[in-house]
Amino acid sequence: MKRTKIIDVLDGAKVGTQVNVKGWVRTFRNNQFIAINDGSTINNVQAVVDFNSFDEKHLKRVTTGACISVNGEVVESLGKGQSVEIKVAELEILGDADPEKFPLQPKKHSLEFLREIAHLRARTNTFGAIYRIRHAMIFAVHKFFTDKGFFNIHTPIITGSDAEGAGEMFKVTNFDLDSVPRTEDGRIDYKEDFFGKETNLTVSGQLEVETACMALSEVYTFGPTFRAENSNTSRHLAEFWMIEPEMAFYELEDNMNLAEEFLKYLVGYALENCKDDLAFLDNRAQEEDKAKPQNERAEMTLLERLQFIVDNEFVRLSYTEAIDILRNSKPNKKKKFQYLINDWGADLQSEHERFLVEKHFKKPVILFNYPKEIKAFYMRHNDDGKTVAAMDVLFPGIGEIIGGSQREERYDVLKAKVEEQGIPEEDLWWYLDLRKFGSAPHSGFGLGFERMIQFVTGMGNIRDVIPFPRTPDNAEF
Amino acid sequence: MKRTKIIDVLDGAKVGTQVNVKGWVRTFRNNQFIAINDGSTINNVQAVVDFNSFDEKHLKRVTTGACISVNGEVVESLGKGQSVEIKVAELEILGDADPEKFPLQPKKHSLEFLREIAHLRARTNTFGAIYRIRHAMIFAVHKFFTDKGFFNIHTPIITGSDAEGAGEMFKVTNFDLDSVPRTEDGRIDYKEDFFGKETNLTVSGQLEVETACMALSEVYTFGPTFRAENSNTSRHLAEFWMIEPEMAFYELEDNMNLAEEFLKYLVGYALENCKDDLAFLDNRAQEEDKAKPQNERAEMTLLERLQFIVDNEFVRLSYTEAIDILRNSKPNKKKKFQYLINDWGADLQSEHERFLVEKHFKKPVILFNYPKEIKAFYMRHNDDGKTVAAMDVLFPGIGEIIGGSQREERYDVLKAKVEEQGIPEEDLWWYLDLRKFGSAPHSGFGLGFERMIQFVTGMGNIRDVIPFPRTPDNAEF
Repeated sequence: MKRTKIIDVLDGAKVGTQVNVKGWVRTFRNNQFIAINDGSTINNVQAVVDFNSFDEKHLKRVTTGACISVNGEVVESLGKGQSVEIKVAELEILGDADPEKFPLQPKKHSLEFLREIAHLRARTNTFGAIYRIRHAMIFAVHKFFTDKGFFNIHTPIITGSDAEGAGEMFKVTNFDLDSVPRTEDGRIDYKEDFFGKETNLTVSGQLEVETACMALSEVYTFGPTFRAENSNTSRHLAEFWMIEPEMAFYELEDNMNLAEEFLKYLVGYALENCKDDLAFLDNRAQEEDKAKPQNERAEMTLLERLQFIVDNEFVRLSYTEAIDILRNSKPNKKKKFQYLINDWGADLQSEHERFLVEKHFKKPVILFNYPKEIKAFYMRHNDDGKTVAAMDVLFPGIGEIIGGSQREERYDVLKAKVEEQGIPEEDLWWYLDLRKFGSAPHSGFGLGFERMIQFVTGMGNIRDVIPFPRTPDNAEF
Repeated sequence: MKRTKIIDVLDGAKVGTQVNVKGWVRTFRNNQFIAINDGSTINNVQAVVDFNSFDEKHLKRVTTGACISVNGEVVESLGKGQSVEIKVAELEILGDADPEKFPLQPKKHSLEFLREIAHLRARTNTFGAIYRIRHAMIFAVHKFFTDKGFFNIHTPIITGSDAEGAGEMFKVTNFDLDSVPRTEDGRIDYKEDFFGKETNLTVSGQLEVETACMALSEVYTFGPTFRAENSNTSRHLAEFWMIEPEMAFYELEDNMNLAEEFLKYLVGYALENCKDDLAFLDNRAQEEDKAKPQNERAEMTLLERLQFIVDNEFVRLSYTEAIDILRNSKPNKKKKFQYLINDWGADLQSEHERFLVEKHFKKPVILFNYPKEIKAFYMRHNDDGKTVAAMDVLFPGIGEIIGGSQREERYDVLKAKVEEQGIPEEDLWWYLDLRKFGSAPHSGFGLGFERMIQFVTGMGNIRDVIPFPRTPDNAEF
């Protein structure tokens, strides 16, 4: 008999029909009720066995984690929370799971423990939900941009250019590290390496995707990026995925509009398409909250936070206005900030961003027009001579979720900036070419995909929203 | 005025309305007709200027490659091949392109030359078409699997495991290559490296995605993979994208069914959604063919080849049957094959695959049940003791486009195989765990994305179907 996915059994199988279901045993109660999950949904189907009709030895193998196949009739369920269940006629064990050895017994496991068995954690409700939501968000990203006529561009992972300056890079090499080839004067002879030059893992596809933008108008990347930074925090990964749209003929305001529309679309898509998984995670977060002291509990539940994003306009605030608000704020006057805000030009810290978003406005905030000194070389100089057309989108609980800017499209201005920053022109000749031949105003931004998944799932540690996290001293599996 | 994309002007703008169009000048004929392209479609919009109404100096800047913005009225076109054109009222130069310096003048450029200016080649018709088709195929991949309830899993790019054995790997390191840390006994001290161990770039996400398959049932990867192999051919890249679905409860036949359905879906999607780009590439290929001697010309046009895939059932042929056919074939008897087929067990070469697909069957072929000696350790042993449940899909002109298998789900059989091949168990403990706890029959395959794009676009060199190709001695941009 052809297998029916559990999501389809629960959501439409007719009472009285015969079905085959395959999946993993979550629990087996009273030698009678098997809860089976196949990952198609967070919900289990209940398979009811008449233990008199089955060999006892056979039933003993129905343990948590075992993989089974059952044939039987769909019948109305008397149990709570499910409309139908399966009356088992045949039961086959596809793969045993020795209860003495299988680590995922039906009890609460810590997230730390589950990270050590990342190859099995997708079998828990929490990680099943996270991965299904992660998939929905991947698809939503592509759908959003495809519907708008954007083109996805695969920018290179291995790069010979290290001009972006977004962070410390990993080296990629084919050298035998035991005997790195040397030139006659004793330096490393990169001509002997695979690519004939020094190469690294990309920190951003932005510069490369701009080349496609100057031909196809509206494009985006969605790929892995890397940072060789020794940040052992709940917010950093050495390998993470980033989405970077880049649009010709967009100025800063268009860029802000697109960023806001995009974030609302993703959150709305999750609310619409991941109801059961979000309900589970919402409940999970509320349970966790109960264990915390009153003043540390979240003001809103996960579902409320998501709905809040969809329902509210993001505040748009210039850096200059933000400095004014922060300078006159209570925590600044009472010296509660670690970094006090005195002068225009100060780099904003996470504490300041959180104050603006969580205390002052209680809404997502888009900060724009930052001092040029604290932003990247490719951002467009504003006419005031002091600021660049940069923007950051700040989310409650997460901080910066998107960073972007209008790009400097004027050849002379960009060239001066490149020289001022001491970037060798041979690294960026092709990027400068875009301004030499048919330049146009254009803008773009970057969304850290895992930060977004953290926000949508409510997970506190970024290592729990990517299947196999890479962090300092950890590249297991 | 809000910009209208050229695709929308050509496909629906009402005669008499005012529009703004922005894009790059392709040609400017007779000081009157500007062909503008914005990448939203391969088609240009014609903007007609009355040269008496514009300053001559201004019009001189309307050169091939310049970026311009025009406002004007949509009028019926008298020219061939276009229904509407724009009567220009205002014309702004956004970015000049000095005709003495801009490398993309309106003439035929060689693909080799265009590879050297990969940052500009998206502005040609050929590469615009390829990148738009590449995007359509990316979206089609996600849509195909999403519609079936598969989940996309991001498997790691940096891996501490090198057990897959699909090819030579690139090293990833944070060491200063000038002074690699050593242990007391003089060996490289990988404990001092970023991840505390040796790490490489992945050659395949298969082993990792199997962990998700054993929880969510139907999953797929779509990400970059790497080979540090010194293959300077038109078919190899050091960095390429791969799609690897993995399905619980699928046996080999289910796997073949899915592969065939998937390939037909992708080709059908391109035929349906990329008509103009495919028509251009079809024509381009026919023009190229005309320059070839009669006997080297393609038997079918690009569009015919694509339609042929959609319309025909793939031949399914066991390795054993294939050997029989090859052994008795004309080229074997006449010793035209470079590698003659004598005995069962021979590894098939590209010449044999092409004979089966292009000469014998004249159809795509799925070969299955290969000798176990020539296939990977994780493939399921058949009961005959000689073969494994492997399959390769062979396409005309391309050869192997998909490779896959049913996986060995039996712990003891797999463990013996791992030991036999001398793979250290500490590298694969987690992969073996999947067979220890709740194992299930499962299958999967890998599709090289660039090979697929080559087939769909008809491009002969794989370096022309990825924006920034990485090959030996080349990591430019």
